[in-house]
Amino acid sequence: MKTLQELQTIIAKSVEKLNFPTEPAQLYEPITYIMSLGGKRMRPALLLMACDLFNGDLEAAIPPALAIEVFHNFTLMHDDIMDNAPLRRGKATVHSKWNQNVGILSGDVMLVEAYKLMMRVPEHLLAATLQVFNQTAVGVCEGQQFDMDFETRTNVTIDEYLNMIRLKTAVLLGGALKIGALLGGASSQDAAYLYGFGENLGIAFQLQDDILDVYGDPDKFGKQVGGDIISNKKTFLLLKATELADQNNLKDLNYWLHLTEFDNTEKVLAITRIYNQLDIRTRAELKMQEFADTAFNSLEKVAIPEANKQYLRNFADGLLVREH
Amino acid sequence: MKTLQELQTIIAKSVEKLNFPTEPAQLYEPITYIMSLGGKRMRPALLLMACDLFNGDLEAAIPPALAIEVFHNFTLMHDDIMDNAPLRRGKATVHSKWNQNVGILSGDVMLVEAYKLMMRVPEHLLAATLQVFNQTAVGVCEGQQFDMDFETRTNVTIDEYLNMIRLKTAVLLGGALKIGALLGGASSQDAAYLYGFGENLGIAFQLQDDILDVYGDPDKFGKQVGGDIISNKKTFLLLKATELADQNNLKDLNYWLHLTEFDNTEKVLAITRIYNQLDIRTRAELKMQEFADTAFNSLEKVAIPEANKQYLRNFADGLLVREH
Repeated sequence: MKTLQELQTIIAKSVEKLNFPTEPAQLYEPITYIMSLGGKRMRPALLLMACDLFNGDLEAAIPPALAIEVFHNFTLMHDDIMDNAPLRRGKATVHSKWNQNVGILSGDVMLVEAYKLMMRVPEHLLAATLQVFNQTAVGVCEGQQFDMDFETRTNVTIDEYLNMIRLKTAVLLGGALKIGALLGGASSQDAAYLYGFGENLGIAFQLQDDILDVYGDPDKFGKQVGGDIISNKKTFLLLKATELADQNNLKDLNYWLHLTEFDNTEKVLAITRIYNQLDIRTRAELKMQEFADTAFNSLEKVAIPEANKQYLRNFADGLLVREH
Repeated sequence: MKTLQELQTIIAKSVEKLNFPTEPAQLYEPITYIMSLGGKRMRPALLLMACDLFNGDLEAAIPPALAIEVFHNFTLMHDDIMDNAPLRRGKATVHSKWNQNVGILSGDVMLVEAYKLMMRVPEHLLAATLQVFNQTAVGVCEGQQFDMDFETRTNVTIDEYLNMIRLKTAVLLGGALKIGALLGGASSQDAAYLYGFGENLGIAFQLQDDILDVYGDPDKFGKQVGGDIISNKKTFLLLKATELADQNNLKDLNYWLHLTEFDNTEKVLAITRIYNQLDIRTRAELKMQEFADTAFNSLEKVAIPEANKQYLRNFADGLLVREH
């Protein structure tokens, strides 16, 4: 089997070779641009790895792997418009480099290009593959909408939050693995187990991201530490803290949540203090571990040699212990 | 065979029965909303008619026909954002009734829903059907981008314009007919001829629209007469006039094109006068007839009984002589 790194290299090279039409330039240049911004190419690499687990033809799995990456970048292009984000991986976002209409329409055609790539599978797998892809795409859109809804809602439950991150982040990992497994010749049972591995791992990963936002090492965590706190983002930590808070904590929390002008560091410190009082970090880590365990249990059930499973375990370990 | 009207009724009823999830409401309600705004359902009805031409199973062709209508409405939802349009069929557009982010994301999921519907074809036709659909979808996006490009370009040629309306408007008619033909069991040759019929008819239809914008009966033409003139839209008429204008005409044309404050009626009259001097209406009608002839010639070649072809001829006649 190939290592994750080898698979990432295959994807990186294949992304470079992706060839879109030249005209209309404003439609296709943004696609090449956003695809060239890099990233770890985790999702397509996972698709290849799932195919490799079952001794499938890796070469044949490259177009659908690219489909997953093109799809992922399509969601980034449109999310950046919706979030009004000026930067993506340190470079100008498409809508700020060109304009908003370019961002909308390039994104649209990217979604179609993703389908075109996804269709390049053996014909007997076309229906099954596209069905997973459709479900994944719908899930990601639903997750994004729930995420936007939560910004203005005040009664978000933890279950709703977990479902949102499942849709927004985790189903794409699950979908990539499931499609790769199908291409590798897995039974539908094994493909479903791999989906379960990916989906639960994705939720664990997002919970870890919530934790690192507050407790991460600023030098290692790629983003501003405390960013979620500053923006009142309803993460697992904030929702759990709200649930467990006594009257005093709640007064403190609400004070900071409703303050419109504040010193960032001061707010981050104050809210972190409340989290610490309520032992939120441990609770979040337990929840994360719960999903990680479910993921590993699902992987156990897949009917492949132990040695092959180790590749996915290594991947998961790399994903979940970036920090501590 | 069923008449166009009967097919439109089938589609209208099927659109009403379309069932999207209820949550997240902001993602799915806009889809039901825009689909309920009506319209003539020409494209899906054409798909059914093409299937009927070859004695295909109409019931089975309904989901892909709905796919075409959902896709068409997805493009309207995103175009309305890009055009900043407040109204669609006299009702608030999605982005003005909800907000822009809702319009972007609902549109995205609509495109996926269109694929889901399009996939509901017999498995042996899945690859061929989706290939036409992909090509159509890419074409429509390219057409929309060219159309936006032309707003700021000053050297648009008539060939570029014809290619733009082919992509933006005509390939969807062609695509609908081709998919319907494939579902009806047509040979790929016949399906291609029907595509040619639809594409050329679509271009003729758009040229007629350009003509009616200036010369239409205000009581019958659904939009403001002269709207293209007022907005300096680079239609076939304006491009042809620019091509044929002598120095005097050109001076007049440029005067009105660059005026930022003007009386609408006065501008429409002045530009129409130039068009009349250059006999633009006749030239546009000839060009329109040229495409209509090509469409009918393509239809002639389809290996189906004369009586069946008459249904499509009637459809084309209804489309092209709305007015004069």
